[in-house]
Amino acid sequence: MKRLLAATAIALLPFAAQAQDPCCATGDLGLVIERATGSLLLLDRSEHAALAQISGLGDLSHASMTYSPDERFAYVFGRDGGLSKVDLLKREVVVRTIQAGNSIGGAISDDGELVAVSNYTPGGVKVFDADTLDLIADVPADGKTIGLADLPGRRFIWTVWDSGEAFLGDFSSDSPVITNLGDVGKNPYDAVVTGDGHTYLIGLFGEKGVTAIDLWDDTPTPRKFLKDYGKIEDDMPVYKMPHLQGWAFTEGQFVLPAVGRHELLWVDRETLEEKARTPVHGQPVFIISQPASPYVWVNYATPRNGVVQVVDSRTHEVVKTLEPGKAILHMEFAPRGAEAWVSSRDDNKIIVYDTHTFEIKAEIDAQSPSGIFFTARAHQPGL
Amino acid sequence: MKRLLAATAIALLPFAAQAQDPCCATGDLGLVIERATGSLLLLDRSEHAALAQISGLGDLSHASMTYSPDERFAYVFGRDGGLSKVDLLKREVVVRTIQAGNSIGGAISDDGELVAVSNYTPGGVKVFDADTLDLIADVPADGKTIGLADLPGRRFIWTVWDSGEAFLGDFSSDSPVITNLGDVGKNPYDAVVTGDGHTYLIGLFGEKGVTAIDLWDDTPTPRKFLKDYGKIEDDMPVYKMPHLQGWAFTEGQFVLPAVGRHELLWVDRETLEEKARTPVHGQPVFIISQPASPYVWVNYATPRNGVVQVVDSRTHEVVKTLEPGKAILHMEFAPRGAEAWVSSRDDNKIIVYDTHTFEIKAEIDAQSPSGIFFTARAHQPGL
Repeated sequence: MKRLLAATAIALLPFAAQAQDPCCATGDLGLVIERATGSLLLLDRSEHAALAQISGLGDLSHASMTYSPDERFAYVFGRDGGLSKVDLLKREVVVRTIQAGNSIGGAISDDGELVAVSNYTPGGVKVFDADTLDLIADVPADGKTIGLADLPGRRFIWTVWDSGEAFLGDFSSDSPVITNLGDVGKNPYDAVVTGDGHTYLIGLFGEKGVTAIDLWDDTPTPRKFLKDYGKIEDDMPVYKMPHLQGWAFTEGQFVLPAVGRHELLWVDRETLEEKARTPVHGQPVFIISQPASPYVWVNYATPRNGVVQVVDSRTHEVVKTLEPGKAILHMEFAPRGAEAWVSSRDDNKIIVYDTHTFEIKAEIDAQSPSGIFFTARAHQPGL
Repeated sequence: MKRLLAATAIALLPFAAQAQDPCCATGDLGLVIERATGSLLLLDRSEHAALAQISGLGDLSHASMTYSPDERFAYVFGRDGGLSKVDLLKREVVVRTIQAGNSIGGAISDDGELVAVSNYTPGGVKVFDADTLDLIADVPADGKTIGLADLPGRRFIWTVWDSGEAFLGDFSSDSPVITNLGDVGKNPYDAVVTGDGHTYLIGLFGEKGVTAIDLWDDTPTPRKFLKDYGKIEDDMPVYKMPHLQGWAFTEGQFVLPAVGRHELLWVDRETLEEKARTPVHGQPVFIISQPASPYVWVNYATPRNGVVQVVDSRTHEVVKTLEPGKAILHMEFAPRGAEAWVSSRDDNKIIVYDTHTFEIKAEIDAQSPSGIFFTARAHQPGL
């Protein structure tokens, strides 16, 4: 009997030893949204490979996500009001709640404790415990909330499309403190915080102009600039609202998409005045800075959405035009800038470019891919 | 026999299942150097706890490190010329080589493929395969190399104390291409690349001034600025060379330590002209930007090294003076800025501050701690 047990134990030991071999550093993982199938593809960025498909995310036709500070969990915000906590190591959804009728995005607090979701129906912001997804706070609004972002000190900022007001929520103590920052303009459609946490920039759809709020002020106050920006004449259709998450902040400038025009607008960060314009291939959707470089990469709205262009922030000129595939929905860079990952929804693949040579280093099959999110975002304020 | 095997298999199964439970997301890990014992303490940033001590790192009296892109491995550069590859999941040194007589630092390429080390004895730069630590290239220099940093495109930049020349090494093809960028000044003692990869800043010990090289130029060229900076009179002793890794880049300004004075110097990034000075507690050693804020935190050289101050980059004034303990050697922030981790060598502990309230959130025992390095550095160009 002893000999048998010993033999069995030895036979099983290698298996157990292998199972104990630690795996899964999370620093170079990523997720891409497969929008048609409500699934995520787990990516290994260094290996240029898909590791697993994760199902059960509901309606991801429009979705975004944010990561926990340890890069283990992704919080996925789906159009159907679903909030899903995904474990990248277990490769599955571990907690899921339908927390509203319709929502457009969310954020995680700087300390990783709270996850906030931005809702259309009913309008408002809900705040959840990041560990359990228990509801912590429910802040109703007079309309659809947009432009939700985290601020240092366990705070969040958001804006309301219908009323044109921005709000700051401080959740650092037991009782949340909500401050109305005032009127930002007519029908704000999106907003973003600069990477240094200094400025909240709000795009307006109901009138011309862009609004900035200095978040480091003791009393943050909306300030309108670029007063001729946007709000094109009635006879020029707007195909798609420009995503302010796509604004790039480079070299003392903001660069933003022209509304209804095939142009980039370059704006001086100090003076908030327009510096230059770049004629481009189509109506810009995302403009994203290539890390450690003077370049931004741009994709476009349908029907001209088969092209990506690279623009130099010093000369404001297009330096490269690429055709990665059909319906390019998103771009994401390797954190130090060596690669650009581009999703082609209608070719069902992700294309990986070398940002220096523009060679294609890899292609990864994915079903109707849209947003690509690397875990490095866990360490970036506002993402 | 079958029943026995079955029973044994079942008895072992829970153990095997537990062993398979994935662990070890690496996003919120960190390492602190225990300089007196040649060891590292593995930290869990979210838990405010030490997880393990890792030994066998040789002489860490002066050491630094960089991380692999997946945040699994740390490459530790020791004063004794040791280069150690540390596995954060296995919690041990997995490869180690004594690659020179005396070295001061190193860097990892943007794609994570190469690790370069900056050597004093013999002078030069050696480049290793990041996976195996096999020697890939050996670039001798006419003296001690300083200011080694990675640049996009699998390149490195460094400077030579004795000859005053800077070099760019391109390792992206089979044959390295080394370019001499020219004379930067007398006895450059340290250098650093700005976070956007735009400018290489070089501190001079042998003459007044600081030198900048625009890395985005087709022909990067040294340019002297702040021509009255440094090189104090002979009768004022310099206790410690200011660490240029401690320079902070905030709000259109550089802030750098005065040489031999109890002051910070604020310099306009565009014009390279001095804007302001801040009188401070002692001779600054590290000046580090608090993420998503207008603040920088400063520590000081012996004997006034029991104090840390917080300075506002907008007003250039000290806003807080802290006394964390004896011999404060280093500071490191939580990636989104919520906490500041401070090492007290002579109190043998790390103090964790809430950056908004300045409350002490935790203290962690450590033996003669010096540098603190969070894995988030894996995603930062130049770190």
